Amino acid sequence: MAIGVFDSGVGGLTVFKSIANCFPTLDIFYLGDTARVPYGIRSKDTIIKYSIECAQYLCNHYNIEALIIACNSASSCAIEALKEKFKIPVIGVIKPGIRAALKTTKNKKILIIGTQATVNSNAYLHGIKEIDPSIQIFQKACPLFVPIVEEGLYNHPVATLMIKEYLEDFISKNIDTIILGCTHYPLLKNQIKEIFTNINIVDSSIAIIEDIEKLKINFNNSGKRLIHITDYSQSFENLKNTLVGQIPYKIISISE
Amino acid sequence: MAIGVFDSGVGGLTVFKSIANCFPTLDIFYLGDTARVPYGIRSKDTIIKYSIECAQYLCNHYNIEALIIACNSASSCAIEALKEKFKIPVIGVIKPGIRAALKTTKNKKILIIGTQATVNSNAYLHGIKEIDPSIQIFQKACPLFVPIVEEGLYNHPVATLMIKEYLEDFISKNIDTIILGCTHYPLLKNQIKEIFTNINIVDSSIAIIEDIEKLKINFNNSGKRLIHITDYSQSFENLKNTLVGQIPYKIISISE
Repeated sequence: MAIGVFDSGVGGLTVFKSIANCFPTLDIFYLGDTARVPYGIRSKDTIIKYSIECAQYLCNHYNIEALIIACNSASSCAIEALKEKFKIPVIGVIKPGIRAALKTTKNKKILIIGTQATVNSNAYLHGIKEIDPSIQIFQKACPLFVPIVEEGLYNHPVATLMIKEYLEDFISKNIDTIILGCTHYPLLKNQIKEIFTNINIVDSSIAIIEDIEKLKINFNNSGKRLIHITDYSQSFENLKNTLVGQIPYKIISISE
Repeated sequence: MAIGVFDSGVGGLTVFKSIANCFPTLDIFYLGDTARVPYGIRSKDTIIKYSIECAQYLCNHYNIEALIIACNSASSCAIEALKEKFKIPVIGVIKPGIRAALKTTKNKKILIIGTQATVNSNAYLHGIKEIDPSIQIFQKACPLFVPIVEEGLYNHPVATLMIKEYLEDFISKNIDTIILGCTHYPLLKNQIKEIFTNINIVDSSIAIIEDIEKLKINFNNSGKRLIHITDYSQSFENLKNTLVGQIPYKIISISE
């Protein structure tokens, strides 16, 4: 028995790492759809199709007890479709992020940043409003953040320039909490803090742990981990090594 | 009868536009694989698979007399596979770019810029060396240029910053010719000229016209044009309107 974790690419390894650290004996199989990354620039229908194919691969090849969507774009657009199709618990990153943000905010002003698909879906906005309609919500799509992180440029001036470009207008809004609504964005956390000096940053790769703890699954496996990718690139390998070190990977095909 | 033109996404519309302007009565069907853009970060095998699927769609749906690969990554990696599989003339952007660069250079120092896939393939380098081994060749992958253009940020300071980052080291090399080895890059031409003030820029979307003129096809059709995309996004529509105006498009599926 094991859990399956998937993402459009390498960003979800921030979630994988967090889960792997918290549950050392849990078997975890990760799939990054690097042949079709990024998802966040695509339509909802395409994200649903790709997400089902990722989940199907993990279910076909492993004895998966739960499925973790380590991608905000896929969580926003495809969680309902995945829950309907696969008869195991499916956990996305949106609900944990919302819960953590609501616990964190004092002045009820929250900024959500994510891909175009995540922002367009309004998944965070609707989820927050359902729980507390009095929260003031700001949203901003930051489409260049994913390629900046995928290219390993998160410490480069280009990261600072684009953080300013996308987020500067929000500095005067007295926002006290920002949700990193994309699993690539934790790599930009320090640079975001330089601009928003007094802000709480919610990282759903940490918030999701509570949801996994509550799962009725067998956490005592052999601690096996394997990363699957649908295409190889040097930047995948660099980012994988930075994020999770020497965990093995294999290249697979999921769409024929 | 008509010609088919394909690209990983919207960048190839620079080539489409150039062909459409030169051959007003030619029927041209364009396919941009926007559900899987960008190709330039992917492996050779994946680029070949995707390119064959694009070409197959155009051949299945239209009476195509010739196939134009309006994408340097696909031209570099997949032209041989496409020539083998499809029994019509296949023209890529590499050879026209090489021919134009060799005509242009005086001091025999050429810089090739492109995606990681194009640079890794060494298609330009080998092609130039075959014709003139005395040419001194420099190559640089510029992976952030495609997302910058796709997001419509080609006039934004981020374009200038990344042009400096990728190309500044080459200013002192006394290069007289630069090949824009990616169909997105013509949108960055003016910004590149600001850094390389005395350089000749080779744009294969213009160089390819000579190759098309030589084709033994019927150029007198009704001048019909249709753009096919595999996924919709607002940034596609913005960039399409900027590049080619009101030409109609439809959304199709090519991988099942």
